[in-house]
This record gives sequence, C-alpha cells and structure tokens, in this order.
Amino acid sequence: MKAFYGDLRLGILGGGQLGRMLIQQAVNYNVTVKILDPDREAPCRKLCDEFIVGSLNDYETVYNFGKKVDLLTIEIEKVNVDALEQLEKEGVLVYPQPRVIRLIQDKGLQKQFFKENDIPTAEFQVISSPEQLKDSTIPFPYIQKLRRDGYDGKGVYKVVDESYLEKAFTEPSLIERWIDFEKEIAVIVARNENGDIETFPMVEMEFNPEANLVEFLISPSTLPFAVQQEAADIAKKIAESLKIVGLLAVEMFLDKQGKILVNELAPRPHNSGHQTIEGNVVSQFEQHLRAIFDQPLGNTDSLSNAIMINVLGEQGYEGPAIYQGIEKVMKCAGVYIHLYGKALTKPFRKMGHVTIVNTDREKAIETARYVQETLKVIS
Amino acid sequence: MKAFYGDLRLGILGGGQLGRMLIQQAVNYNVTVKILDPDREAPCRKLCDEFIVGSLNDYETVYNFGKKVDLLTIEIEKVNVDALEQLEKEGVLVYPQPRVIRLIQDKGLQKQFFKENDIPTAEFQVISSPEQLKDSTIPFPYIQKLRRDGYDGKGVYKVVDESYLEKAFTEPSLIERWIDFEKEIAVIVARNENGDIETFPMVEMEFNPEANLVEFLISPSTLPFAVQQEAADIAKKIAESLKIVGLLAVEMFLDKQGKILVNELAPRPHNSGHQTIEGNVVSQFEQHLRAIFDQPLGNTDSLSNAIMINVLGEQGYEGPAIYQGIEKVMKCAGVYIHLYGKALTKPFRKMGHVTIVNTDREKAIETARYVQETLKVIS
Repeated sequence: MKAFYGDLRLGILGGGQLGRMLIQQAVNYNVTVKILDPDREAPCRKLCDEFIVGSLNDYETVYNFGKKVDLLTIEIEKVNVDALEQLEKEGVLVYPQPRVIRLIQDKGLQKQFFKENDIPTAEFQVISSPEQLKDSTIPFPYIQKLRRDGYDGKGVYKVVDESYLEKAFTEPSLIERWIDFEKEIAVIVARNENGDIETFPMVEMEFNPEANLVEFLISPSTLPFAVQQEAADIAKKIAESLKIVGLLAVEMFLDKQGKILVNELAPRPHNSGHQTIEGNVVSQFEQHLRAIFDQPLGNTDSLSNAIMINVLGEQGYEGPAIYQGIEKVMKCAGVYIHLYGKALTKPFRKMGHVTIVNTDREKAIETARYVQETLKVIS
Repeated sequence: MKAFYGDLRLGILGGGQLGRMLIQQAVNYNVTVKILDPDREAPCRKLCDEFIVGSLNDYETVYNFGKKVDLLTIEIEKVNVDALEQLEKEGVLVYPQPRVIRLIQDKGLQKQFFKENDIPTAEFQVISSPEQLKDSTIPFPYIQKLRRDGYDGKGVYKVVDESYLEKAFTEPSLIERWIDFEKEIAVIVARNENGDIETFPMVEMEFNPEANLVEFLISPSTLPFAVQQEAADIAKKIAESLKIVGLLAVEMFLDKQGKILVNELAPRPHNSGHQTIEGNVVSQFEQHLRAIFDQPLGNTDSLSNAIMINVLGEQGYEGPAIYQGIEKVMKCAGVYIHLYGKALTKPFRKMGHVTIVNTDREKAIETARYVQETLKVIS
C-alpha cells in the first residue's frame, strides 16, 4: 500500500477542470501534485505544487515530466503513450495503465475489445479507406467516428444516406449502426491495484443536440432496478477485463427495446460524475485518488437526488467571461456552482458546472431548469 | 454587488488551514487569491495565485500586501490593524472591518462590548497590574486571560486560590468568574454588507482538557430547541451590534442552571465550523466568501449528523508526520479526512480534522470514537 499523503509525488497529464477538481480533493490528503499542460492559462495553473507548460503528445516532454514524479495519472486520454510505457518500464507507477490508455485512445481497438469480451455494443465496422466506407454492410443511417482524437462531439459524422458519403472522414474511422436510443446512461466504476471494484449509481443523461455535450444529468437514475444492475455489471466486467487501476467511465445507450449497448469508455474522472462531489458519499475525484494510491475504495451511495448541468459559453459571445445571473442562482438552496477558472469564453466552451441537490426529485429538476435559464456565460 | 469571480483580487492575511479550506471553496468561484504568511511552509503556499512570506504584525508588510488586492480578509486575528485601517481609508475593502478585529483582538474590549450591549457573559474584571489582581472582588477560583495574543489555550491561567497569584500573568489581562459549565456550545453567524444575517445550527463541543483544544464536536446539537434558539439570537445580536461583514464564530458556555454565557468571538471561519463542509447545505467557508463579496447568504441547514474531530500531533512525537491508521479510517463510510499540509508534527499541533457524517447520531458517535482511537499522527 502506497502512502497517500505527501510522500509520493503525483503527476497529472492535463491541467483542465478534471485536474482542478482532482486537486481540490487531493489537498485533503496532502498529495503533492505536478501538472503538465500545453496551455499556460490552464485551470490548474495556480493550484498545484508545480505547473509545467508542455505538449502532452511529445515523447520527450511527457517522459521528462514523468521522471520527476512517483505516480502518474491522466485527466485526458490524448497523451503520448510510448513515453508512458517507457516510464512504466523504468518503475514509475502509471495509472490508468498505458496499455489501457492506448486501447481507449483508439475507438477501433475499443470496439474490438467489446466484441472480444462479449460487451454489448452497437454493430460496427472498422474503416481504413473511403472505398471501404462505400462497401460497408451497415445500413443507413449510420455514425462514422474517427478512430483517434475525437472528443465532445468532434470527430463524429452522421451518414444519413449515400449523398452524405462525399463529406465523410477519410482518416481511419469506424462506422456504427444508428441507435434509436431511449436514454443515454453512464456508470463510473473504480478498481484499485488490490482488485477491489466499486461502481457509482447509474446516472441518466440529456444531451444538448446542438453542442453535442452532456448538458443535464440526473443521479441516481429512476430506471428499473434490473437495468441499473445490468449497467453496473457491464461496467464491472469491463473494469475486470481491462484490469484497469483508477476510474473508468462507461457511457451506454439504453435502446427502445430495453437493451444496453456500451458507447464509449473514459479511463479517468468524467463529466458524468461531477454530481458525485455533493451527491454521493465519496466523489469520483476522491475515488480516483483512492484507486490509484491503492487505498480502500470509498462508499459510492447517493446522498440525495443530484442534477448536474454543464455551464457552457453562450453562442455569439467570445472574450472575457461574465457569469450573468450567478447571484440569482446563488439564492437557491442546495445549488453548487463550480467554475473552472477559464478567463475566456467561447460558444459551447465548458466554463463550469452546477449541481442541484434535493431530496425531492421533481423540485431538483425544477431548480435545474431555473438554473439553466438563468445562468448564462457571456462576454 | 461585487463580482464574485475573478474580477476582484482577494487577499487573505494568514495562510494556515483556515485559509487553505477557504481557497478550496474559492476555487469554485474563480476567485484570485493572494496570501500573506510569515511561514514559507504554510498550508496555503502552493494553492494560491500568489504567496508572500512576511509578518502579519508589521505595518509596512501588511499595508504593502493590502495595496495589491481589492478585498482583504483574515484567517487569524493577530494582524496589524493600523495598516488595515489605513488601507480601508484608501478604499481597499477590508472584511471583517478593522474596528471589529481591533475589538476582538483585545479580550478586555470584547468583554466591555458584551457588557455595553447586554450580551450575557461571565462576571469579569479588567486587570492592568499584579496589585489590582490581589484586590479583585471576583471569588476564587477564577480564570485569568491575557487581553491580547492568547489562542488555543495559551494565555489562560486558572487561579485556584491565593497561592496561585504568584505565577499569574503580569501583562494586561482580565479575570473571569469560573463557570462550572454543562456544555460548551457555539454558533457561527454570517452577515453581509446588505445586512442579511444567517446562523448555522448550534453545535456542542467536547474539549481535550490536556491540550485545551476542541477535540470532538457534534452538529447539530440535541439540546432543547429553546436553548438553540437563544444561542442563535445571541449570535445574531452580536453580529448586528458589531455590524460585522463576514463570518463570526460565537463560543458560549451553557451553565448548569441552563444559562448561556458568551465566552469568546472569532471574526472568521472557525474550528467549530469545519463539519459544515460535509454536514450543511453551505459550508462556513463558502458562507464567509458570500458574506465578504456581498453575495446572497447560503442556506445553513444541517444535512445530517456531523461529528468533527481535530487530528492533533501525538504527545512524544516531533518531526515529519506519519498518519498511522489512516487506511483503516478510510474504510469507514461517511468519514471525511482533511489534512492541513503540514510536513512536521509536534504534540497537539493541529494536523488535520476528520468529519463523520451519519443519519444515525449514535452510529456517528461510535465511528468518531473509532477514528479517534485509530488515527494517530506520529513521526
């Protein structure tokens, strides 16, 4: 068991809001944190023991950063895995493991992994050339996803019919049968080195179709217990199969026939778990720290209904951020504002999130709608 | 109304654990924080936008620090008030107000204030010389307190009988009738510039008589509602009379006749409010920020039973801190560890605190006793 307080230097690849919230928790355990991020204005810049500006994709930069820490984790998957593998060989603890990051970086490998491990997922085909796309056996409409570097809705293209093929991605991709889903759901699971596994209660999501981002999330779900149990079992099975150390967010669809299909994995704290800060006994951030430091995993029970709203930059505004309506929102009881320390807003940029906690689910939803209408990031 | 996010630079005099927890909360509102502390290893050193090493009691140092911020607050009362008054004159917002800090710095003035404002407090006499002490009309045993600079049990002396007078303080002091109290209780109240006032639910404390420190705190109290109401009313009356802006901790005794007597004030976040982080809708730290930034005060309701234990350096150990038993404590659900980032332990040094949350009060107490027996700071 590793010391959890001060003895080990923790390095985080990425200094965004996930790193920021991880640090807010790590403070409670005296963890020494170093951050690597390409942006000198990154949200973590003033909160860590050392902030290093540099590329997460450059071998030398990541390697040199990793040599200065004892335990390395990520808050973004798009990092140089070759460097991480070398660091691992040289005795640096890297959690999640480089092989897990490599697998998840590539949506093609991710899908193959689902197939090989009997994880339910939408029918798919790996595509390496535009010709292959035309010959695909998956019926229209379908979704084309870049194998690498897609995020927050980028790198995704809906192919409605043959006429859409012209604008399709030409890079390595995969195509997936269109799922006419009932709900998007997610389970966050944690696994430590000891092999202990704990899942957070399943959450339901609503997306903003325009921004293609999670916008409204409800925890815990009120879907039937059997669905929740199945989703938790799938998340556990994936964590077991990967033997991941750390947090794993499992995004899933519940289709109209009641079948669960795994969409994507994220091997780190995730947007679908922000409400755990106030809504659950331990937060996803504390759980990630516990997992990577090989500590006992925490109790994940829900304390109340918790609704999470992403605070996105309004369309039509670009510049220094102004949080219009924040005082009105602060008058509501059980409303928790988390701003991410980003000076500049732009349309759909994730500027913060708000969690609404209420023992009465309907009241929580009502307050969430009020917050959504009231708090606007303009400039 | 002042902007709460990034526009105003907040300065905090003192970079200890109270500042640290204030920053953890301020992060959520993008508040830019500068810290002044004499100790270059202070708990806030790595968490703020700027950390300046310097004396809190030196006029020039405090003045120069204050000129660099828009809003100045404290996490310790022992600061140079002359500098704060000058800064206030020059347009820097200083909350709590310098006149309030000046009053509270001097236990003699504090007591006079209680008397003049009909705040119930133990009978007292202000003492300026050893001769005056001998002539006092307060019967033995009584408590002698230094007027200035006493804290955490330092500067307090029990005069049991005449033979104790020899070792009494010779500096300006006050003496107070010995209260054979039933309970120590506390209420934290907040007031903003707008004049809004909110109290946190009353808490009950248990002291470690050896260390003379709060060691075990229960929130909310289960004493009769009338007592809680009276304590809240007293706290509000003090906040109103002082017209304080910010948080005010009011420590009180409940004597064996059921009478409440105010013991001491602290115009800042306080050890008796740490459990609000997990136990109440808003924490004392968030409430202090809301008050000094003239924002709407938050809802202070208790979410559950919350017990707070100070984690003190064990007797007999001095050196780099080791947190023995921490993994065992982390196995308990609803147990929240907050370490203060202090590398070195010494006997009775406040190294952290633990909050135990449970809807079942007896179970919370049981877990608290387990934590107390299990978690030891050694070296």
